Amino acid sequence: MSGALRPLAVAMGDPAGIGPEIIGKAWRNRELHALAPFFAVGEPGAIAAVWDGPVARIGTPDEALNAFDDALPVLAVDCSATVQPGVPDVAGARCALSSLELATGLARSGAAGGLVTGPVSKAQLYAIGFTHPGQTEFVAERCGVAPENAVMMLAGPTLRVVPVTTHIALAEVAPTITIPLILAKARATARGLARNFGISAPRLAFAGLNPHAGEGGAIGREEIDLLIPAIEQLRAEGIDATGPFAGDTMFHARARATYDAAICLYHDQALIPLKTLHFDEGVNLTLGLPIVRTSPDHGTAFGIAGQDMAEPGAMIAAIRMAAQAAAHRAAYDAEQAATA
Amino acid sequence: MSGALRPLAVAMGDPAGIGPEIIGKAWRNRELHALAPFFAVGEPGAIAAVWDGPVARIGTPDEALNAFDDALPVLAVDCSATVQPGVPDVAGARCALSSLELATGLARSGAAGGLVTGPVSKAQLYAIGFTHPGQTEFVAERCGVAPENAVMMLAGPTLRVVPVTTHIALAEVAPTITIPLILAKARATARGLARNFGISAPRLAFAGLNPHAGEGGAIGREEIDLLIPAIEQLRAEGIDATGPFAGDTMFHARARATYDAAICLYHDQALIPLKTLHFDEGVNLTLGLPIVRTSPDHGTAFGIAGQDMAEPGAMIAAIRMAAQAAAHRAAYDAEQAATA
Repeated sequence: MSGALRPLAVAMGDPAGIGPEIIGKAWRNRELHALAPFFAVGEPGAIAAVWDGPVARIGTPDEALNAFDDALPVLAVDCSATVQPGVPDVAGARCALSSLELATGLARSGAAGGLVTGPVSKAQLYAIGFTHPGQTEFVAERCGVAPENAVMMLAGPTLRVVPVTTHIALAEVAPTITIPLILAKARATARGLARNFGISAPRLAFAGLNPHAGEGGAIGREEIDLLIPAIEQLRAEGIDATGPFAGDTMFHARARATYDAAICLYHDQALIPLKTLHFDEGVNLTLGLPIVRTSPDHGTAFGIAGQDMAEPGAMIAAIRMAAQAAAHRAAYDAEQAATA
Repeated sequence: MSGALRPLAVAMGDPAGIGPEIIGKAWRNRELHALAPFFAVGEPGAIAAVWDGPVARIGTPDEALNAFDDALPVLAVDCSATVQPGVPDVAGARCALSSLELATGLARSGAAGGLVTGPVSKAQLYAIGFTHPGQTEFVAERCGVAPENAVMMLAGPTLRVVPVTTHIALAEVAPTITIPLILAKARATARGLARNFGISAPRLAFAGLNPHAGEGGAIGREEIDLLIPAIEQLRAEGIDATGPFAGDTMFHARARATYDAAICLYHDQALIPLKTLHFDEGVNLTLGLPIVRTSPDHGTAFGIAGQDMAEPGAMIAAIRMAAQAAAHRAAYDAEQAATA
């Protein structure tokens, strides 16, 4: 079964957030953006509360293929939540978790061609006993992948970034970075670019940790002690790794043209350039999983939910990227199988 | 004497770098960019080596006003350096330092309306016994200002940033940040925006140190322990200070429209967004000095010196900003004097 021909499962996220609205708007723009068939997984009432477009209740992912041209296919999750846009509660969080669980399972089984996850409220999820740091770790566990091997990539039209560390305090960044950690993230990135983006010889550019990449050890030694050895090791493995470069001079247009992904060392070093350039169209793609998984790179935006103000750009980009990744994977896996 | 009517002194920087070339190109583009009169301070041979345009040797800054329309005015520094573009040496460094010293003195005395400094090689300067971290600290000392009160602002067409810490290792950032340091930088920024940019009630937006500005203490406590108290103190003083905001979501176009300067906590947090957006036109402006001082935000670029490849955009922007700042200062100081 080719993943590229299966419809994508789009978990609705928190029903009180902007997820339902932007999924509806994405469907409405399906022809403009040449979106591959997808279906929403979640509480149908959440869609109805914010969107007056046509909806087709489906019982299986396959039905989405026929329904998609005329209506937004929705695979209902039974969570009996009464949805009030902008007002999150634990019932909604349970609904979001059930949606995520079902959509992940459908992607894992192959019934769906990939997984797109809408925004959730971590605070609400924690309140119902969710113990993962975020959706990524949950999906990784359901796929049997250790969290350190699930790599977060943020991608926009002109930039892809991978943060080596993510949601830790800035003071913890330097002590957390090790050569094995850098190698693990870089290898997963190189393989992920080949498999999900069809880039056969991906170019990885490493940011330095310190200002001006440490100026030869004058402003910190992590470049000399960790980054340069890691980059040399990756090159020895045949990976096109360059740097470390001064963080501030590697994200302008000419610099971005020289690499396929920037490996950054901490959250803001990766996310500042990505969101400065591509705030409304950033996609979070998880590398290292057996399934395709993308997510719009924004939150639930409860403050504007239900007011028809939410921009669907990032959700549309996430759906497009998931479909493209599924197609690239199918080609990549076929080639691997042919050469094996 | 109004600072706005005096010509600007442009120190040539390292004679083997791109400084002489971009000063010549800036003069050639003087009408296109409506540049106020300026004169170069440095080794005339460095200009002649890379530029075939007209040059007018002047003996005093005043002569620049008449000469400027027809030729690039050059106030010669006697340093008998033989300049080979792209090949720095200690004789060139001595020349750069003499140029900086003379240009600073002319600005300090009022003979020049402001100071623009071309790029220097720190390595070469250190080799001749220069003990300041950079030109900014040298200029501050010559102006009788303590280095901690000279504040580096980087400014582009759509963004101004001030880093609270600058050239220190990332691991040192968190331990270095204190409430008094934040307050000193913020106060100088607010005053500098009023005095140099004519913004009467400047809006300062603070970046958080940690991902998502710490998520209420879940990812680091510096926001709670340092930033929020500092912001409250500034507000009590009548300064329009907001934040701390998540670093990654405060630099896209809509966010930038809500403040006049972003106060960032470390080098890359400030410089990544600035250079991602405005790589070829970023200006370094020193606040807190009795004189106007700007500098193009790039280095000597020895690798392309003498090849007619250097882009003058940042030098042009630095000259424009210095002239505008001098004019704003004259108006500000006149108003302060009138209300005193």
